[in-house]
Parts: sequence; C-alpha cells; structure tokens
Amino acid sequence: MNYNQLVQQITKKRSFLCVGLDTDITKIPDFLLLTDDPIFEFNKRIIDATAPYTIALKLNTAFYEANGVKGWVSFEKTINYIRLIHSSLFIIADAKRGDIGNTSKMYARAFYEKMSCDAITVAPYMGKDSVTPFLEFVDKWVILLALTSNDSATDFQTLEIKNSESTLFETVLEKSQKWGSINNLMYVVGATQASQLKKIREIIPDHFLLVPGVGAQGGDLVEVAQYGMNNTCGLLVNSSRAIIYADKSKDFDKVAASKAKEMQHQMASLLKLKGL
Amino acid sequence: MNYNQLVQQITKKRSFLCVGLDTDITKIPDFLLLTDDPIFEFNKRIIDATAPYTIALKLNTAFYEANGVKGWVSFEKTINYIRLIHSSLFIIADAKRGDIGNTSKMYARAFYEKMSCDAITVAPYMGKDSVTPFLEFVDKWVILLALTSNDSATDFQTLEIKNSESTLFETVLEKSQKWGSINNLMYVVGATQASQLKKIREIIPDHFLLVPGVGAQGGDLVEVAQYGMNNTCGLLVNSSRAIIYADKSKDFDKVAASKAKEMQHQMASLLKLKGL
Repeated sequence: MNYNQLVQQITKKRSFLCVGLDTDITKIPDFLLLTDDPIFEFNKRIIDATAPYTIALKLNTAFYEANGVKGWVSFEKTINYIRLIHSSLFIIADAKRGDIGNTSKMYARAFYEKMSCDAITVAPYMGKDSVTPFLEFVDKWVILLALTSNDSATDFQTLEIKNSESTLFETVLEKSQKWGSINNLMYVVGATQASQLKKIREIIPDHFLLVPGVGAQGGDLVEVAQYGMNNTCGLLVNSSRAIIYADKSKDFDKVAASKAKEMQHQMASLLKLKGL
Repeated sequence: MNYNQLVQQITKKRSFLCVGLDTDITKIPDFLLLTDDPIFEFNKRIIDATAPYTIALKLNTAFYEANGVKGWVSFEKTINYIRLIHSSLFIIADAKRGDIGNTSKMYARAFYEKMSCDAITVAPYMGKDSVTPFLEFVDKWVILLALTSNDSATDFQTLEIKNSESTLFETVLEKSQKWGSINNLMYVVGATQASQLKKIREIIPDHFLLVPGVGAQGGDLVEVAQYGMNNTCGLLVNSSRAIIYADKSKDFDKVAASKAKEMQHQMASLLKLKGL
C-alpha cells in the first residue's frame, strides 16, 4: 500500500486506528481452545469485528514465535486471511528486526514477499546499511524505532549527543529520514511520550508515525493528535490489549468491536478538528 | 549451558569457534535440493563435520524466516538434532530481538523454552526493561549488541555522549553490565573493529564476547585474540560464509570441516600463547 492509498483509507473510514494482534494463547477466551488453531480463530473474529473501524493491523511476531512452528502457521494464516477478506487493511509485522545488509535483506524477503506484509518495524542501532535493504521494495514500508513507550527508553534514546543539539532518538530521526522518504519510512513514537511529539514534528513534519502505548500503557489519544497530527493525519495509533482482551466471553469480538468503534469515534472528532 | 561448562568445552576442544548457520537455499549444493528439507540436510552435514572443531553454533533466524513456516520447521529440526547428537554445543539464536517487557518475555520463551537455544542476540536500543526479561532464565544467555561489524555501525554506535567520556556503544557496555552478570550476559563486538577491543576490555574485562565478521567480512583472528582474549578465553569467534559455503560439491561438508579445523588449529595456538 502506498502513501496516498493509506491517506485515502484514513479519510474514508474516519479513523487512524491500528489494532495490535498480540495474541496470547493464555489470554484468549477458553472456548476457542477447542478449535484447531485457537490463535487464528481469535484473530479472524477480532479482525472481522474491528475492520470497519480500523486502518491497520499490527502483528507482534513474538506472540507467534512463542508457539514455534504452529505459531508461524497461525501468523501466515492470519495474513492470508486479511489479504483475502480485508484487502484494504495495512498489515504491520511488529518484528523489531535489523541486522547486517545481507541478513536484513532476508528479513525483508520474509515479511514483504513470503508473508506479504506492508510494513515491518526495524531497530536503528546498527545504522543505515541495516535499514536500507528494507527500503528497496516498492510500496513496502520501514517503521523505524525512534522513541519507544517503555520506561527504559531513557536508558539510551534520550541521551544527548556531543557536538549537537540532539538526543540519540532525534539523531536517529535526523539521519534516517535521508535514507528513505515519506513514501516508505515511518517512525515508532510511544504515546507515553506525547509531550515529545512537538519536537519530533519539527524534525519530521511529514512522515507517518506509528504510536503504540495508547490504552494499556497509559498514553492519551487527544494529546497524541494535538502534537502529532499533520495535514494528512500522519498518524497510526495502535491499541492492542485494551481492544482484543476487553472481554473473555463468547461475544469477545463484539466487545472488541465496540472498543474499536469508541476509539474510531474519538478519532473522527480529532480529524474533524484538524479539518480532515 | 553455564559459564564454567562453556570454558571447559573451550579448554577441552582447544577452540573458541562458532560456526554460523546462515543457511541460504540459493547457496547450498544443488544435489541437496532433491531432499525433503534441503536446509536441514545441509545443516546436519555441516554440524556433523565441523562439531569436533566447534564450541558454538549460531543460527541466523532471518535465513529461516525467509522460507516461512517451512523455514521454522528446518530451524526447529536443526536445534533438536544438535540437542540429540551434539549436546555439548552451545546454541545461539542470532535473532537481534528486543521489545517492551511483555514482548521480550515472549521472545525469551520462544528461543529458550520452545526451541531450547542457549543464547539469543538482543538489540539494546530500547534499554534495560527490554533486555532483563531475557536474563531471568537459568543457564540462558543474552548476547547484547555493542559494536557491530557493519560499516554503518558508526552512524549511532560510535557517537559520543554529552557529559561523559563514552561513545554510545561504550555507554551500552557500562550500563548493561549491571543488568546481568558474566554468567548470563555476553556482547557482540565485530571483528572488523579489533582495535576497539582493547578499550572494550577495559570496561568489561570478564564477559564473553561474540565476535562476528572474521572471514567473509574481513576481520583478523590474531588481532581479535590479542586484544580480546581474557584469562578464561572470553571469546566466541564466529565464521559463517567462509566455512559453510567453502565448497559446493558432494564433499562440501568435508571442505567445511577442513576450514573449521584450520581455524581451530590457529585458535589452539592462540590459547597456548595465552597460557590456556
């Protein structure tokens, strides 16, 4: 999916919601455990129920890897299902990959070609040549970690760099924006750091931001929109646990849908406020 | 495997070689493509042939993920085979993972429990709470990226941090060594940066270092040992392409063994020089 198509979806659905499929076998409703592939059944029902309110789906690879080969079967089935039934949804592999060039290229092939995701999250520590192999695929995206939503983000990301006015995460933004363009590069910016969004928008006014941490991790949607929204929206706000584990009954998907709808309504207001 | 067991293996085999299983379906001998699982068959023969000269095996997850579910089957089969037939080998998942706490915990379960690896490489960008979930497993190891072997390592890792005498990678070493101990924490230090090893050993004299980049990437073994070896060796030097793709004939495994043996001989001399 390209930049314009993504913006069109946002405008059409009046939403910039990304639902995180951090699907944990120990947290899904018990009755699903009787099915052949409980993880896939759960995902399928969550996706069908929340799709009207959702722009993107983010699959956290750790939760699939934890189930070994079976987990990867669930992962691939989920992606194939989205491609078949909900083809306008933007699919993010939240994988935090990144390695030397020839290895990053293999990861890119894995997630863009073998599994036909639209985007993959990438860690910046190894620098340009660990990221650019991901940028060579048409209409595919890198979502580079900048400022993350966890407490320890301050261990390294906010350290100030000598002979500059920038912290490490600001340096990551400054340097990396030259590696790609607004058409293939987004950034992860944690919602728990909303006050930092203003400064971030000074460095990268036009790039899309993927904002995790709204909901269970304590981030605030109104603040995120206030500081992070740009003229084409430029935001994908992720919610995982607060939507997918809102309920454990047979109607878990309906409850998830109502939570997603609630966020979509709030998002519609915020888009309207911005004249979008 | 714990610290003492690892040192014992090094002393017994007179080697600190790690063979990297970056197994690429397009690079293995053609005749293997007729088997059910060419990646596994290749790995099995490389492992059997090189085991006498080898302390550790490093599986680069990207090369398995690139084949989707089938790749993960090959990955698990390879690990099960090592556990069964070569139980004294130290198994590293070169996965460069790292995420918020609950996600890192899932990755730890995936690689330590589901796949019974001894160690996993972890990226430090997200800080302490993204790393410590990996350190909670008995006799399992984190191998944290410090200074990598790729050209772009200088983009961020060697930036100097304000109000300190340290670069970013030195700060990573200084802070992170308090998160674990020499019994569960190693560091990745690229062999192409051997001149930096002296400074690194001043910060972390006792930790094991995993050194990639010898061979195809141009690192020099003698220099690595000169600056990096400590009183219990403290090194695992990885070679991937220079060993596993040394030959494409039916005897590829014998050629790989001779390359591994060559390195082991050199390593035996370097250990002797150090009085080990």
